[in-house]
Amino acid sequence: MDQTLDVKKAIRDLGVAARAASRLLARAGTAAKNQALSAAASAIRSSQKKILEANKLDVAGAKKAGRDAAFVDRLALSAELVEQMAEGVEQVAALADPVGAISERVKRPTGIEVARMRVPIGVIALIYESRPNVTADAAALCVKSGNACILRGGSESLHSNRVIAACMRSGLKAAGLPESAVQLVEFSDRAAVGELITLPEYIDIIVPRGGKELIARLARESRIPMIKHLDGVCHVYVDDSADPAMAVRIADNAKTQRYGTCNTMETLLVAEGIARKVLPELGRIFLSKKVEMHGDDATQKLIPGIKKATDRDYYTEWLAPVVSIRVVKGLDEAIEHIAKYGSQHTDAIVAGDRARAERFLREVDSSSVMWNASTRFADGYEYGLGAEIGISTDKLHARGPVGLEGLTTQKYVVLGHGEVRS
Amino acid sequence: MDQTLDVKKAIRDLGVAARAASRLLARAGTAAKNQALSAAASAIRSSQKKILEANKLDVAGAKKAGRDAAFVDRLALSAELVEQMAEGVEQVAALADPVGAISERVKRPTGIEVARMRVPIGVIALIYESRPNVTADAAALCVKSGNACILRGGSESLHSNRVIAACMRSGLKAAGLPESAVQLVEFSDRAAVGELITLPEYIDIIVPRGGKELIARLARESRIPMIKHLDGVCHVYVDDSADPAMAVRIADNAKTQRYGTCNTMETLLVAEGIARKVLPELGRIFLSKKVEMHGDDATQKLIPGIKKATDRDYYTEWLAPVVSIRVVKGLDEAIEHIAKYGSQHTDAIVAGDRARAERFLREVDSSSVMWNASTRFADGYEYGLGAEIGISTDKLHARGPVGLEGLTTQKYVVLGHGEVRS
Repeated sequence: MDQTLDVKKAIRDLGVAARAASRLLARAGTAAKNQALSAAASAIRSSQKKILEANKLDVAGAKKAGRDAAFVDRLALSAELVEQMAEGVEQVAALADPVGAISERVKRPTGIEVARMRVPIGVIALIYESRPNVTADAAALCVKSGNACILRGGSESLHSNRVIAACMRSGLKAAGLPESAVQLVEFSDRAAVGELITLPEYIDIIVPRGGKELIARLARESRIPMIKHLDGVCHVYVDDSADPAMAVRIADNAKTQRYGTCNTMETLLVAEGIARKVLPELGRIFLSKKVEMHGDDATQKLIPGIKKATDRDYYTEWLAPVVSIRVVKGLDEAIEHIAKYGSQHTDAIVAGDRARAERFLREVDSSSVMWNASTRFADGYEYGLGAEIGISTDKLHARGPVGLEGLTTQKYVVLGHGEVRS
Repeated sequence: MDQTLDVKKAIRDLGVAARAASRLLARAGTAAKNQALSAAASAIRSSQKKILEANKLDVAGAKKAGRDAAFVDRLALSAELVEQMAEGVEQVAALADPVGAISERVKRPTGIEVARMRVPIGVIALIYESRPNVTADAAALCVKSGNACILRGGSESLHSNRVIAACMRSGLKAAGLPESAVQLVEFSDRAAVGELITLPEYIDIIVPRGGKELIARLARESRIPMIKHLDGVCHVYVDDSADPAMAVRIADNAKTQRYGTCNTMETLLVAEGIARKVLPELGRIFLSKKVEMHGDDATQKLIPGIKKATDRDYYTEWLAPVVSIRVVKGLDEAIEHIAKYGSQHTDAIVAGDRARAERFLREVDSSSVMWNASTRFADGYEYGLGAEIGISTDKLHARGPVGLEGLTTQKYVVLGHGEVRS
């Protein structure tokens, strides 16, 4: 039989089941959803051995397939990581339930009352790569926000994901909720993803997590709206009104606290009036931490021996111990630079002057704008969302870290007393 | 020279100019935006003669092209309609400016403060059909919400739209704002629309208004997110706990107050326990108003002589004096019917029983759900939004009537004191 037809049918079946489950989950109470998550966390703990055995198979497979050490590292689980996974599910259970909240209630001259009610989105498909903990995290967030989910993890983590998804489903079952609210795509070929993105009748949003190429391809091809994250070309701009010590501390942290994250600073902009007080010191720090610096002429004068920055460098998300540096005249040039080269992710200003900081916060069109803080704070946990399903660089619906609220939407509720329109 | 290349370049040029204008408009103050709208309203009034002359050309062209009376009616302007257009622009000026509002400010344990700031989306492309007043309405809403817009009206209204758009631009100019914040696509061929929907780098959202086929096609082909409206298969469900007189009044109004609108009731569902008290009376009213009724067996017994409803009827948005009627066992069957046949637009319950009404409001997954009110209230003006750019049947971002707030988004603002992440 034709394999393509098999995949088509299987994915459609998942969609039909997810849609049905989503209707039941949408009306589930907070207590039942929390019970499901507690039971799932217990199941993860009691399945520790099975999860680790499955994970061993995945790790062996990845090594055999010649995957690099970083890949295997993301894939590999330990007893400690399994415990963290269970705790993560319990933390989601402890978050406030956004569903059902009524806001903006107003009485209209006609007599009707109009309000908005927060409701689940419906069915969410998550497409992700190697980390198996995403299976538990994402399922927990979807269950808590009343959404059914279809999870399509990387084929290299299929054994691990299968056991983890089974734990989540057993939690749903224990709470009397439909198991098909959490479903795993078990086809490893790419056709499965191709199918998922063409079923708007069963899937309301796609959340792709993974490499930029995967996401860009899905964005081109998907017929379903996405909550997605593309580049993170984040900037720190040091205004000449900044405290130099604070500027050095923030720029250092934004670049070197972790190199591979999307909220890491990739380009440092420094006002010419303060460059002399900031760049030599930062040059020493970056040199000592083996951060490769690419600077413009003015920067090269203050930090001798570094590479000349190219125009292309300023567009680059290094995700590595490399930083682009540029000396600018001041705030206007910084804002222009960020508008041209940035990716609307996270950008920070270090400044003592409030009016300039406010202009930066207002005029830089990024999902997070910061004053006197490290870009590394752009994160759902740091913002107090409790958890995040991802960071959105889109403008519609959810911008920046996306937590439970981003997995819901609002409908209008009209309360009348028999009113008709005249 | 190749015409396709011309269109491609011209649309791209509009996009580049719109993006630049959007950055200036995003930082414009409320006073400047209001001044632009007042000046635009004055320009519309003082250009009344020019607008009506241009409109005469359009009307003559439409007649020559064999367009039907309804089409010509939507296209034709009068002195009174031009005055209404000017007043509409002034009403938008009087609305509160959503841009810059700060909300959800919290202090985090790390010391940073996190808040959300409401900001314009950027560049909005509006694709619409014959009504020339949309040119003024949409431009006013975009200017007030700080967005640049690209307007692509129907080719039949090009003469009218050109004069109206010039009035809006003269208002922008008078207030020192960039004229290219309002641009009109002057190409009449469909290639222009095809180009618009492939420029995510210059256009942030597409708002299509018009026939279902146009919107469905754009939804399939667009690479840019949309705020769109598809079907309006709206239901009124009369529960057996309803006051029969109220039920009759609401069902009558929901169907007959206007036939061609998206929030008109297309299907009436009646609980069997109250059918006898409601359907014969409604049958008389619909008959007297020449509304064609299609009912199931139970309905046919209570309203003799009407057509038998087919399964297809229940999926149909009549937009005409036709109504589908079905007798259901009660609330559960009504909710099931709406989930299967509805379009998630607007659905109402008439009921005395609060618990049942609340279940309906919670479980019916539509952009507007109503209790004891006519579906005809689903409208931005009736909800108090002041104006609307359309009604969204999408789930992401904006659901239901979309006003100024739906044309904005929120970014995160982080206020620190030198905090770094540890």
